[in-house]
Parts: sequence; C-alpha cells; structure tokens
Amino acid sequence: MTTQVIVLNGGSSSGKSGILRCLQAVLPDPWLAAAIDAFVDSLPASMRNSDSGIEFAPDGGVNVGPEFRTLQKAWMEGTAAMVRAGARVIIDDVFLGGAHSQEGWQKVLAGLDVLWVGVRCDGAVAAGREIARGDRVAGMAESQAELVHRDVFYDVEVDTTDTESLECARIIADRVTP
Amino acid sequence: MTTQVIVLNGGSSSGKSGILRCLQAVLPDPWLAAAIDAFVDSLPASMRNSDSGIEFAPDGGVNVGPEFRTLQKAWMEGTAAMVRAGARVIIDDVFLGGAHSQEGWQKVLAGLDVLWVGVRCDGAVAAGREIARGDRVAGMAESQAELVHRDVFYDVEVDTTDTESLECARIIADRVTP
Amino acid sequence: MTTQVIVLNGGSSSGKSGILRCLQAVLPDPWLAAAIDAFVDSLPASMRNSDSGIEFAPDGGVNVGPEFRTLQKAWMEGTAAMVRAGARVIIDDVFLGGAHSQEGWQKVLAGLDVLWVGVRCDGAVAAGREIARGDRVAGMAESQAELVHRDVFYDVEVDTTDTESLECARIIADRVTP
Amino acid sequence: MTTQVIVLNGGSSSGKSGILRCLQAVLPDPWLAAAIDAFVDSLPASMRNSDSGIEFAPDGGVNVGPEFRTLQKAWMEGTAAMVRAGARVIIDDVFLGGAHSQEGWQKVLAGLDVLWVGVRCDGAVAAGREIARGDRVAGMAESQAELVHRDVFYDVEVDTTDTESLECARIIADRVTP
Repeated sequence: MTTQVIVLNGGSSSGKSGILRCLQAVLPDPWLAAAIDAFVDSLPASMRNSDSGIEFAPDGGVNVGPEFRTLQKAWMEGTAAMVRAGARVIIDDVFLGGAHSQEGWQKVLAGLDVLWVGVRCDGAVAAGREIARGDRVAGMAESQAELVHRDVFYDVEVDTTDTESLECARIIADRVTP
Repeated sequence: MTTQVIVLNGGSSSGKSGILRCLQAVLPDPWLAAAIDAFVDSLPASMRNSDSGIEFAPDGGVNVGPEFRTLQKAWMEGTAAMVRAGARVIIDDVFLGGAHSQEGWQKVLAGLDVLWVGVRCDGAVAAGREIARGDRVAGMAESQAELVHRDVFYDVEVDTTDTESLECARIIADRVTP
Repeated sequence: MTTQVIVLNGGSSSGKSGILRCLQAVLPDPWLAAAIDAFVDSLPASMRNSDSGIEFAPDGGVNVGPEFRTLQKAWMEGTAAMVRAGARVIIDDVFLGGAHSQEGWQKVLAGLDVLWVGVRCDGAVAAGREIARGDRVAGMAESQAELVHRDVFYDVEVDTTDTESLECARIIADRVTP
Repeated sequence: MTTQVIVLNGGSSSGKSGILRCLQAVLPDPWLAAAIDAFVDSLPASMRNSDSGIEFAPDGGVNVGPEFRTLQKAWMEGTAAMVRAGARVIIDDVFLGGAHSQEGWQKVLAGLDVLWVGVRCDGAVAAGREIARGDRVAGMAESQAELVHRDVFYDVEVDTTDTESLECARIIADRVTP
C-alpha cells in the first residue's frame, strides 16, 4: 500500500515543523503541509485569544472552545479530502487530547494509508528551544511534552532531543511506501 | 439560501487579504480563510521556484507547472470539503486563467451557495502598493490587474483604488445571506 | 545643505512603514531605515510586555518603563551616530510624548540636517487599516492618531487618508536636498 | 571590567540568533540585539539583491558591493555608539572576511570591554538545519561554516553541533562580567 498521509504528532517546540520541511526535501514526490498552526492563522483574529476560540494561557496551557472545535473538525475533513483528491499530505498536529485526538483523525482518514509518527523531545530541552525561538508563550513546550503522546500509537517514533531534524526525516522517509 | 463560501478574486496587491481580515471582523459568524498564498507556502520549498511548481519571473509574471496544478486541484477539493463539513470559508485567490479559473472553482463548489466577489484596483495604484509592501516581486500587481478579471462574473465588485478595505468588507458583508 | 536624516512621525497604522519603503525606492541614493518597531524587536522578549519595558494595553494604550527609556535613548544616539558616520537614515517613530519626543530627537540629531515629516491619517481610517493588517492591538491607531502630533513642528506633512504611500513619498522626496 | 558588548560570530544556520535570544533571557540585565540580518532588512529593497548591495548567489555564496560596505560601516559605528550611550549590546554577525572583519569591529569598538564569542557548528549539521528552517538559500551554511572563523580569536567558543542554544548561552553568560 502506498503511504498517502503522514501524521506528525508532538508537543510545541518538539521540532515538528523542521522535520516536515526536511521530509518535503528528502521525499522524492511532492508532499503538501497541513499544519495546525496554519489552521489557527486562518481563524478570525477575534477567535485567536478568546473563550470560544483558542486561548494561550500565561502558564503555557492551551484551551479550545466549541467554535474552535467545529472549525477544526471541518479543517480535518478538508485535509482528508485533499488526500482523497490525490495530494500526498503531511499533517503537523498537537494531540492535546492524546488518544482521543488520534481517534478523531482515524475517523476522518478512514480508508487511507496513514503513517503515524510520534515526535518526542525531552521537556526541558524543548523548553530551552522555546526560549531560543522567542515567539512562543513560555511553558507550552514543557506542559505538552508528555501529554500529547498519552495512549497514542505510532508506526514510527523519533526523538529530537539528540537527533537532528534531517536525520529524523530520513528515519521517517524510510517507512514511507512509495 | 445561506451564503456558505465567499470567493475573493483579484490581482496581486489589490487588497484581498486586508478585505478578508476585515470580513472576518465584521461578519457575525466565524469564517475561515483559505488563501492561495497559504497554499503556496504549504508546498515543498523546491517547488516554490521551479518549472514543475510555481515560478515568479523577474518581470512579475507567474508560471505554474503540472505538479503545481495537481496539488492546487486537491487544495481546491479540500477547501470545498471544509465548507461541506460545516465551515464558512472565504477563499482568497488570483484567477490567472480568468474565466477558466472560475469554472474550476464552480465545479469544485457545485451545490454550495457561493458569493463571487471581484476585487479591483487600478494597476498603477496596485503597483505603488506593491512597492510600499516591499515583499513582492515588482511587476506582479500591474501585470495581473486586468488579466484576472477577464470574462469572470461577480455577484458584487469592490474597488480598493479609492475605497478602504473595511468599507469594501462592509459592502460585501451586506450581500452575505445569514 | 544636504538632507542627512528624514524623521517620519505618525500614529500606529498611519502608513509610515509603507512610505519609508517607497522613499527608499524613489530617492536616488541608498537610505537606511531606523524604525522604532525594529528597536522594540531588538529588546529581550521579557521586556516586550512588562512594566519596566513596553506594555501594550488591551485598549490600545502603550506604556513604557524606565529601562525601555534608557535603551531607547541609546538607540537614538546610535541612530544619530550612523548618520554622522555617513549613512543617510530615515527614522520611523511614534512620538507618544508629542513635542517632548521631538525635543529628544533634536538634541540627539543636533548639527545634522533633518527633514521633519508628519504622517497624518484620520483616526477612523487608521483604525480600519489596523483591522485589515490583523497583527496589531486594536485601538492603538485611534488612540495615537492626534496625540503624536501634539505641538510637533514639521517641514512637510502628508496625509495618507486619501493619498497613496508612493505619492506621499514623492511629496517628501521633493523636499529632500541632494 | 564590566562586559559592555558581546560579539557572536558564526556561519549561517550555526544557531547565533537562538543563542542571542537565550542570552537575553539568562543575563540579569537587559541586553539589546544588533544583528547583521536586521541591518540587511533595513536596506532599500533594490540593494538586497544587486551588485552594489548584497547578492545571495544560488550556490550559497554571498557577495557585498561598495555601497553595502559604506552603510555597513555606518551601522557598525552606530552600534558602537549605542554601547557608549549606555546600552549593553549583543552583536550577531557573520565574519565573511574572517580576521579582517574582526579588525573592523575592533577599531569601531576600541576602548569598550568586548567578549568575543565563536559560534561553531559542523558544516553538514548546519546544512541540515538550513533545510529544516526552509527560508535560507541552500548552501550558505556549508560554505560559511569554516570560512568565518579563519584567524579570528575568541574569549569563548561554543559548538551547537551537540550543545543546545540555552546551554551555549549559559557557557557564554558565565564569561560576562557584571
């Protein structure tokens, strides 16, 4: 079976976006990126920090409201439709609900050949990278590091604590069926 | 019929993105943005200036190759699927193929209630705004100003030459059926 | 006397940055940009929203603390030194203190040939453009529109309410002595 | 003697900006950033890829012309003046001329207490990070990795190949005299 979708799941500042760009560079075919960050950017500004939308608390916690969930669901359906229409897609997401978030994607991607990838990074190291990036709410990296992997299953796992993004991408690419 | 999709078509630097953000602010319900620029950003870096992908010529011309078209088609299908899944979506596109581009969207959006919006801007004025933005290839604004509207039909047209983005958004919002 | 420095003063979203880029494009010699926004970006992240640094209040107000003032003063001295070292410089600032802010620059730029430019924009129009930009705290444009011009004198004034950035830049460029 | 300036020198994608932000976070006093990238952004758009300005060749090489050098010299003088005016400053530069570039800064910073820091990174690793960033001309990292350190002396050297930015920042901070 040809791999049609790659799902990267990991906490904030774990290195998913870097791995995604490296995957796009090393995979022989063109793959589209579908990142939860881009979805958030496509929301009305008023939803980007509100109770009904998404809220980034000063302690690094992230809360999402009912309107966010409705639109997020539609975004997931749309992403699956892109794959069904013939695009290879790499999804870059943060499973704030752990296994529950994965079930959501499983329903939406039913019948497609998915490669599930866990992107791990030691919480303290991710917190340091969050400071080095300078554009994230402090605390997100640490608070999400374990949480997002709770009861999630993977086809392959990489750990950016001691492995470069490009090397992680190569490990993942080896598991992609052309 | 409730408006489900708004399609904004206009040349580079005609002011579509500003109108889109104002529409998100003035419309009472939350609307998602689906912009061709965001689609281009989701492509592999290697396709962003190549024969098979998209090429921004030094004279402001834009050429797209076969692989770009394939992925763009899938992006369009995915965008339509988001609407079918319940999201209100504002599409921000540049109809480089004029009426032909519109036909593509018509097929993909068949059965949905679409508001077609033409965003016009005098070519010389758009060229000046391109300089003021400072992040676009010089010449795109001028070369696309007329081209993208060729034989395209609209439900409503706005002209940013002398009208502010927020005012244009209000004119469009008046045509949105809640 | 050859103009050595151009100082653009105007409220948030009045169009200073666009005029600056157009000035760089229309003036025959190369001019460096020195923008207060770039200065703020060069501060430690911890000072970018704190009592001792700069604080963007939810109502659009901006408060700066003692440490911000100290570093800002040094930035102003450094900018003047660039001019004395031979660079033509366009300063893009927001005179939150009106005439008092101008006196600060006058001291620092003493002996240099300065062109003082007021960039005006109707408060309601600037507030609309703030929404269209989508990346500013709502209310800054409106609250700064009049405030920053209080008792400030200018060699030339432009008003972006009904005049394009490029046209404003040409009006200013006509007053630059080569 | 109290350290007044920290100069970080390293090739493209060696991790200087990340270390700079971590230094701003770990040092007890506020330090301003003065980055060569911000200087390039302050140039007229027309100089950002031209013979007289700065040219990023497709192979990753970087060439600078006479007008670039003149303005760069003024920027260096301005940066030194900020320090003399009382600001603590971290300079983030790429010594394309090796020891010759350092001599330029030594003249400009004469009489100030400078901490010279070499930021090293294995060329192949930096090239991988360049891909992961996705916004740099491919080849710059590799071609600059050794070049920029030629005959340059340092007070302290860090190597990001196997050391995190935050840890590098702590090593540097230990050498800063308060």
